[in-house]
Amino acid sequence: MANAFDGNDELLEPETKELIRRRSAVLAPSYRLFYRAPVSVVRAEGVWLYDAEGRRYLDAYNNVPAVGHSHPHVRQRVDEQMRVLNTHTRYLTEPLIAYSERLLALFPPELSKIVYTCTGSEAVDLALRVARYETGARGIICTSHAYHGTTAAAAEISPSLGPNNPIGPEVILVDVPDSYRDDPTAAAEIFAARVKAAIAMLGQRGVGLAAMIVDSVLSSDGVQTDPAGWLAPAADAVHEAGGMWIADEVQPGFGRLGTGWWGFTRHGLKPDLVVLGKPMGNGIPIAAVVGTDAAMDRFGRDIRYFNTFGGNPVSIAAANAVLDVIENDDLIANASAVGARLRSGLEQVARRHPTIGHVRGCGLFVAAEFVGDPVGREPDAATASAVVNELRDRGILISASGRSENVLKIRPPLPFQAEHADHVVTALDEVLTATTKKKSN
Amino acid sequence: MANAFDGNDELLEPETKELIRRRSAVLAPSYRLFYRAPVSVVRAEGVWLYDAEGRRYLDAYNNVPAVGHSHPHVRQRVDEQMRVLNTHTRYLTEPLIAYSERLLALFPPELSKIVYTCTGSEAVDLALRVARYETGARGIICTSHAYHGTTAAAAEISPSLGPNNPIGPEVILVDVPDSYRDDPTAAAEIFAARVKAAIAMLGQRGVGLAAMIVDSVLSSDGVQTDPAGWLAPAADAVHEAGGMWIADEVQPGFGRLGTGWWGFTRHGLKPDLVVLGKPMGNGIPIAAVVGTDAAMDRFGRDIRYFNTFGGNPVSIAAANAVLDVIENDDLIANASAVGARLRSGLEQVARRHPTIGHVRGCGLFVAAEFVGDPVGREPDAATASAVVNELRDRGILISASGRSENVLKIRPPLPFQAEHADHVVTALDEVLTATTKKKSN
Repeated sequence: MANAFDGNDELLEPETKELIRRRSAVLAPSYRLFYRAPVSVVRAEGVWLYDAEGRRYLDAYNNVPAVGHSHPHVRQRVDEQMRVLNTHTRYLTEPLIAYSERLLALFPPELSKIVYTCTGSEAVDLALRVARYETGARGIICTSHAYHGTTAAAAEISPSLGPNNPIGPEVILVDVPDSYRDDPTAAAEIFAARVKAAIAMLGQRGVGLAAMIVDSVLSSDGVQTDPAGWLAPAADAVHEAGGMWIADEVQPGFGRLGTGWWGFTRHGLKPDLVVLGKPMGNGIPIAAVVGTDAAMDRFGRDIRYFNTFGGNPVSIAAANAVLDVIENDDLIANASAVGARLRSGLEQVARRHPTIGHVRGCGLFVAAEFVGDPVGREPDAATASAVVNELRDRGILISASGRSENVLKIRPPLPFQAEHADHVVTALDEVLTATTKKKSN
Repeated sequence: MANAFDGNDELLEPETKELIRRRSAVLAPSYRLFYRAPVSVVRAEGVWLYDAEGRRYLDAYNNVPAVGHSHPHVRQRVDEQMRVLNTHTRYLTEPLIAYSERLLALFPPELSKIVYTCTGSEAVDLALRVARYETGARGIICTSHAYHGTTAAAAEISPSLGPNNPIGPEVILVDVPDSYRDDPTAAAEIFAARVKAAIAMLGQRGVGLAAMIVDSVLSSDGVQTDPAGWLAPAADAVHEAGGMWIADEVQPGFGRLGTGWWGFTRHGLKPDLVVLGKPMGNGIPIAAVVGTDAAMDRFGRDIRYFNTFGGNPVSIAAANAVLDVIENDDLIANASAVGARLRSGLEQVARRHPTIGHVRGCGLFVAAEFVGDPVGREPDAATASAVVNELRDRGILISASGRSENVLKIRPPLPFQAEHADHVVTALDEVLTATTKKKSN
């Protein structure tokens, strides 16, 4: 995993050491911490996290607190609902219906039905169940460094979990065009050809094609945003073969890309199922599958689905408050404007520091790729990791991603302002200047 | 599904009809409502739910609001946390550690590690992943009318979801001894023999035994509580064959059985993995897998597991508040005392109405089984369903379960008092007396 604490606690403060010791005694070894020196957090507000000593960290990484940490409107709506009612969906409750109407109005009309879950993993898992039941086929195509979640079925389509996580025989991985190294004008065609080959392979394996699932911003594949529309011919190929297109909007969804509510609309494609998650309740667990009638109908009638906490009134109150804030504070336009400014600033830094080979992204989903040199373009994970940790020490939180873990992933809460973007750009410039000086000494 | 609304809205009030119409327009057909006449709920407090007209319903069914609906202590702790911080587990946060220490202290010492998820389904799914990874085997044994959740892997071991829900070739179902019809003194031996046969079958299929998973109160199998200890020889057989025992405590856990914190302790068995869910956060989504070091270690190191919302500070605050209330209000002792009174009252009703063939249960997990006559003992789902709906019309909410859907499932919030138990008993007596009169006219 990129940016994981490696267990070396020699240089840590005694309080941090002691917390890590207590933590390791009770949490399973499944848990990982971020950073060479893990960050101990006690409070957060807006785009800032604070540690016990009052040091503040600019949050340039977390997409869950989409409308900002500890947002008062979300808090208030949750508290009002906690005073009144929190139950399940086998009783009738009006706010669930009203929120569903509001959410569906943000989608193309053919995406007309919702099922709520608690996590993106559960939503992905359900979308796979639905697609496999409806098509009668078992095969799933995903991208070769995808992350879609942690249930058994979702992990099976999450090769980014590493070599010990088994990818089953019903899953085919396809490589994503590299928007830095490959010809962008050929990306759509090349990817569609790979998808067609994968469909043929599923046929040969006798499992058929149930669905292809793609994160509409290709986050784990290194944030491959351009050119807009490059996914569409692959989706056409999937539909022609009788499969479903599952748009994983857990990361790009709810306005982060600054081009509307969902990432798939940038690509002009028509998903059968859309998976929502992380930012949906600003941290209160809620996620969903949105789908066409055709996709959802038979599974729903034949099997049913009940998620005890899914769509409960408190989660719905949080989700409704999130939509309020995104709309009232015009956060999609903000993501577009501040994201553009951030990318522009990073491009200027890249001109001074050729170790940044490529800056890309869309809205407030921004990537900067580190390479050994701009001609050879070989991935430089060591510099990416050093930069992530140097920025942490200067009070800015980001992380790295991509197949080679050499891509800075900058993905802040949506109320990120121009001054915050400038602060990231300046700090990165300083870090790289210091590194260059060190190297030349 | 037992007690599902059948879609016939002819006799419903116009407001209810309209809500159902709007609901069907936006929610997928996966959703089911309870009751012949669905209940529209607007608020709830303690053991009472209220509809828009101010009618109140005694909640004798819901185990999620374990310490009572809209509990002020849980609400307050959640609100305090919402004002301060809600983030993930890759930063260090002390309350997560403190709660984990507190929770583990309620388990035998060998169950020493936790992983948090958001739902019981996710916890079951993770327990299966862990068991399969650790043992290298794929086979799972579960009971023949079990319910363990809704992810693909959990649904595959949930035959109670019905005939359209596929049970894979890696899963073997074993029938549970019927505590009403079979000899209770032979239950342990008979069940262990069936489990041994299932283990042999997994060997023949070439998949081996990874784990057996059992809900420690056998809720979906009709609430099979007695005799305490009947599961232990089966667990021994599983361990002898190199498999893990997964105790599903989503329903019996957190004191409901009145005999301690967990259902597996009644059976004197040693689980390798324990799954927690529903009541854990009183409705705020939180669930967990607790396991031995041996079970958790290799999966954790080799694969890792990260659940974005799992164990977030707000969910932890809710879970911590739930433990406060259970301890401070002595709710385990209350479950024992009020549960015993409820069963005793139901047994008196059964003496007057032989259609109730058997009353059983433990603490506040109580079942009453309806039969055509006490000699033939054939299941009578029609009467169970009629009684559930008559009680609903009299303002008492319960449901039915079991393989034949003829078992009343009474499973109220833990602060249920003697007067509430008496109210259920009296109402049931009245309903059955009215039914008998109707029949004899």
